[in-house]
Amino acid sequence: MSDNIVIPFRYKLTIEYVGTGYCGWQRQQHAISIQETIENAIEAFSQVKTKLFVSGRTDAGVHAIAQIAHFDLPKKYELHNIQGALNYYLRDSNISIIKAEEVDQNFHARFSAKKRAYIYKICNRISPLALQKNRAWHIKKPLNYIDMQRSAKVFEGKHDFSSFRSLECQAKSAIRTIDECSVSVDGEFITVFVLGQSFLHNQIRIMVSALVEIGLNRWDIDKLQKVLDAKDRTVSSSTAPAHGLYFNYVLY
Amino acid sequence: MSDNIVIPFRYKLTIEYVGTGYCGWQRQQHAISIQETIENAIEAFSQVKTKLFVSGRTDAGVHAIAQIAHFDLPKKYELHNIQGALNYYLRDSNISIIKAEEVDQNFHARFSAKKRAYIYKICNRISPLALQKNRAWHIKKPLNYIDMQRSAKVFEGKHDFSSFRSLECQAKSAIRTIDECSVSVDGEFITVFVLGQSFLHNQIRIMVSALVEIGLNRWDIDKLQKVLDAKDRTVSSSTAPAHGLYFNYVLY
Repeated sequence: MSDNIVIPFRYKLTIEYVGTGYCGWQRQQHAISIQETIENAIEAFSQVKTKLFVSGRTDAGVHAIAQIAHFDLPKKYELHNIQGALNYYLRDSNISIIKAEEVDQNFHARFSAKKRAYIYKICNRISPLALQKNRAWHIKKPLNYIDMQRSAKVFEGKHDFSSFRSLECQAKSAIRTIDECSVSVDGEFITVFVLGQSFLHNQIRIMVSALVEIGLNRWDIDKLQKVLDAKDRTVSSSTAPAHGLYFNYVLY
Repeated sequence: MSDNIVIPFRYKLTIEYVGTGYCGWQRQQHAISIQETIENAIEAFSQVKTKLFVSGRTDAGVHAIAQIAHFDLPKKYELHNIQGALNYYLRDSNISIIKAEEVDQNFHARFSAKKRAYIYKICNRISPLALQKNRAWHIKKPLNYIDMQRSAKVFEGKHDFSSFRSLECQAKSAIRTIDECSVSVDGEFITVFVLGQSFLHNQIRIMVSALVEIGLNRWDIDKLQKVLDAKDRTVSSSTAPAHGLYFNYVLY
């Protein structure tokens, strides 16, 4: 028998997790990743070593409300058994499988994704965070969210986001299309919502940090436009902390 | 000099905390309490051993959005210095001082309180909680929240709550007045809001558990009325877990 036989059953998982304490989605040699934790749970219930493919890899500390991943198994399982067994083996983690579905072999968590949505949560108050510790970016100085709302529109559309990508980003092209970038306010919380097909490394965190420069009145909308036009990471803003970012959902 | 001199400066704190990992508000010999943690912070910045008086003691695992406590110091401090110093010493805790105010000696966090509000958070879904782990009561079976909303009204008004108090409750009278008991729904979250001047030990957690019996169609509104009328803890529902309960606010 060849190692390359087609494995016939493909499962899609919807996953919620707290990113705190993990080295991020992707498997690493000397740290615990979300990927490895779930792959171990799949092996524990199926006795099969398999690989999880994810819609959007998240960095250390980034959370997920409804991350999507898929994997293959040689056997057909009842979906509620997959979900139940995985959650049983994940019971001591901060990861929850909120849905298990069977999909056909054409489905790919990463390549089939049409749109991905992220939210970034800011808590704008003087006092330190307790209930929202590691769940939002704490900014003490008052943010002018009206200006943030207006400026967020600068990001919408197709642009070269070279100013808004990590220097280590390996994507060939820095051109990306943002379908929506909007800022909403609820009490002391300011949330940035970003929708697009795909993003550069750290793109959303650098965009959010630029919006915060505007909220702090250190940048205005013209400066933001200039930074975007410069296509130069070194003239842009810093990278907002990972712990305010949530992978929200995927559209296929 | 007498030990009984009047200490002239009284400070009121508004406190947010995650109750997980603490033995509750009240100081205990062999466990870490919220009270002791904050009293230690006060001593660290003022060099004075003092006692905190709280509006509503919370049990182990119960959280607070805006708990109120007061304490006295022989010196006058700038309020932002008190807040800043306490938060500095509390930086490794899950406690945040969200406000510090100076109040006169007639103010008492507990005895001056006119109304106290609590919320109880239920997450009603099949999959385990990740983002809301230890922050909400996880109930898998679907809850009929319309019936819960209707039944919550049974609690409103002045009643003998003997059926809804811990057997260890030491209050002389079981008569309490509930000003509001309402149930709201937001996606998978069901939140019970309770407002009253004061409550018996575990009262809200037993009331919530009774509402869940109704939501699960195991009790109806007549049964709830009968349990209330019975004035007997042993015919009532169990006690909802501590980690869904939040001390919300106090009115003075």
